[in-house]
Amino acid sequence: MNIRFSQRMVREDFQGDFMKLIMKAGASPDIISFAGGLPNPISFPVEAIQKATDKVLKEHGVQALQYSAVQGYPPLREFIAKRYQQQGLDITADQILITTGSQQGLEIMGAVMLDEGDYIMMENPSYLAALQLFHFYNPKVLPVDLTEEGADCDQVEELIEKYQPKFFYAIPNFQNPTGLTYSEKVRHKLANLIKNSDTIFLEDNPYGDLRYSGTPKTPCKKLMGDSCVMLGTFSKTVSPGMRLGWICCTEPVLMEKMIEYKQVIDLHSNFFCQMVLAQYFEDNKIEDHIAKITDLYSRQANYMMDCMRKYFPEEVEFTEPEGGMFLWVTLPEGLTAVELSDRAVARNVAFAAGDPFYEAERNVRTFRMNYTNCSDEEIRTGIKILGEEIADMMKKK
Amino acid sequence: MNIRFSQRMVREDFQGDFMKLIMKAGASPDIISFAGGLPNPISFPVEAIQKATDKVLKEHGVQALQYSAVQGYPPLREFIAKRYQQQGLDITADQILITTGSQQGLEIMGAVMLDEGDYIMMENPSYLAALQLFHFYNPKVLPVDLTEEGADCDQVEELIEKYQPKFFYAIPNFQNPTGLTYSEKVRHKLANLIKNSDTIFLEDNPYGDLRYSGTPKTPCKKLMGDSCVMLGTFSKTVSPGMRLGWICCTEPVLMEKMIEYKQVIDLHSNFFCQMVLAQYFEDNKIEDHIAKITDLYSRQANYMMDCMRKYFPEEVEFTEPEGGMFLWVTLPEGLTAVELSDRAVARNVAFAAGDPFYEAERNVRTFRMNYTNCSDEEIRTGIKILGEEIADMMKKK
Repeated sequence: MNIRFSQRMVREDFQGDFMKLIMKAGASPDIISFAGGLPNPISFPVEAIQKATDKVLKEHGVQALQYSAVQGYPPLREFIAKRYQQQGLDITADQILITTGSQQGLEIMGAVMLDEGDYIMMENPSYLAALQLFHFYNPKVLPVDLTEEGADCDQVEELIEKYQPKFFYAIPNFQNPTGLTYSEKVRHKLANLIKNSDTIFLEDNPYGDLRYSGTPKTPCKKLMGDSCVMLGTFSKTVSPGMRLGWICCTEPVLMEKMIEYKQVIDLHSNFFCQMVLAQYFEDNKIEDHIAKITDLYSRQANYMMDCMRKYFPEEVEFTEPEGGMFLWVTLPEGLTAVELSDRAVARNVAFAAGDPFYEAERNVRTFRMNYTNCSDEEIRTGIKILGEEIADMMKKK
Repeated sequence: MNIRFSQRMVREDFQGDFMKLIMKAGASPDIISFAGGLPNPISFPVEAIQKATDKVLKEHGVQALQYSAVQGYPPLREFIAKRYQQQGLDITADQILITTGSQQGLEIMGAVMLDEGDYIMMENPSYLAALQLFHFYNPKVLPVDLTEEGADCDQVEELIEKYQPKFFYAIPNFQNPTGLTYSEKVRHKLANLIKNSDTIFLEDNPYGDLRYSGTPKTPCKKLMGDSCVMLGTFSKTVSPGMRLGWICCTEPVLMEKMIEYKQVIDLHSNFFCQMVLAQYFEDNKIEDHIAKITDLYSRQANYMMDCMRKYFPEEVEFTEPEGGMFLWVTLPEGLTAVELSDRAVARNVAFAAGDPFYEAERNVRTFRMNYTNCSDEEIRTGIKILGEEIADMMKKK
């Protein structure tokens, strides 16, 4: 049989091999892996989830297991809306669509907005699986460089003027992969550019709750109004395994189209777990739980940075995130992250070389380090090995 | 802001309004609804699921709530493979991909196979949400009429020869909407046609377990080999709310592409519930549970047919299914299901007029009746009202 695939599957698989490599390295038990992006199991409130599950099945078992409406369980949407209201955003439950992880939010936005050849802007570097997702729609991706303060606004201005991209996909808080957070100045500048255009600002915010230092910034949505569509997730604060996230959209016509598409692709997301989460949030203070996670991640991030200061040659630079799960390392000029990665894997240490996070650049000298899922001992040992290899590479240059 | 939607969302929403109407009628508490396709709550083993949930969270809580691999929980895939083996099919766990309901299986097949303008065959009438899904890819849909014995093989032969469609989407067991099951003869004829072509037979089998009379037929997969891709679901036997189904594909290259696509659109399906289902199947005999469901559905189907024989004018025809959830009624020539529907809704009775199940025909005289979710009293009252309205329509013709 000759299988005739669609063009979208025949086009080059965007960095799929790289992705598999990262996943494989993370999965090997002998390896110290800073490559993945798994939350620490401390972020899973197993016992409280068990209580919530019992309650849901005892009190509403039939409802929890039956088909449901596409938009999602109203109390869960109300909880999400209320948390936005606490940030000063005027959001109601009917502006929330529950999705199968925020990853599905990307798919829905892609499907609802993109035709082949459409322009979109993306941070450069950006979240790998977003690059992969949007590539299925074969758009023209316009990379926007990141400065210490966030997206390069001059580039954004030029690109909007020249191409009127359909949206700008961005992660303004504790960005993946860089750990950077947009400054107030950049947020205001961007808001002005976005509001005077037909470009939607698609804000992915998986790590926003995980701030462990510095002060919270003004939500982009507050500055941009309907032009900002937000993606959210419970994966980093309660459970990634449940695959529950959401889209928040205040533009009613866009919301209607997204609901229409979601209805057809999977009818609705897991309803049982939507009810479990709503019950969990009713019976527990999410802020207390988040504080536990950020305490741990803060300690881990600081310990990793301490080790880098101690064991990395001083020519190596790295971002100092105020939250989230990643930091971003820049090697001295002339070195490549891929070579370092090969050397490190040979010594049982893995990280994510920067290459697949960029739309076009290859053999870059940047790489991503995850600090949420290792012991201090593993961090110390791993960073020391990386430091030794970098020093050796510099010597041989 | 001018929102620039993709072409797939601007093209006419295939029968979306009809769908909404069905859902709305089903949701109203005052109405007797035969319109939907909800399983009877008897099919939800609430207590056993609660036990399985407790066990999973106690014994493997962290694993259940963490990210997981895209293909799905191995013990659940092994359970599915073993049930296929019991039907004489040589299936292994690595030929199963867990999906977010079998609906997502449709999306994955659509995305992996279809470009705009590609030909596909579909039963005429077919599952409404499959028609809607595939229409997003803007294929040329070739309708295949159904006889009492299943798909019209002469049409299939002609269409394959003329158009080499990429796949034939079909529901050979207790079809939705007609309740028909393909005969042995049709299965063998189809297998010959399919095996000598590059057309994939995409078998959706949500109701296959729900046989309450007659004898099981040879699985199409057994006759077609790798040319047959099967979709399955736990929605009709355990819980639709969990949104868990699967794709079974024995062609390794196609499987690889489907996994690749699934990985990017939602990383993986709800892992917690995959573990809960696997635990439930380990601790309970699914056959005993299915027997409870089929006992009920058999009784309900027979009662509905008894009422139809009693209250419908004898010119009205209907299918006599051996399983599943639906039967299919044909009004005398000159009447339309839509008119009957309007009259029925005015008297608080709802059903699904045939129109949206057809690719092209409108103002048809067929309609779908669901019998799984009504009491005997509701069935009797509802059928009586429908009979009265049909008689009145015949008189006024």
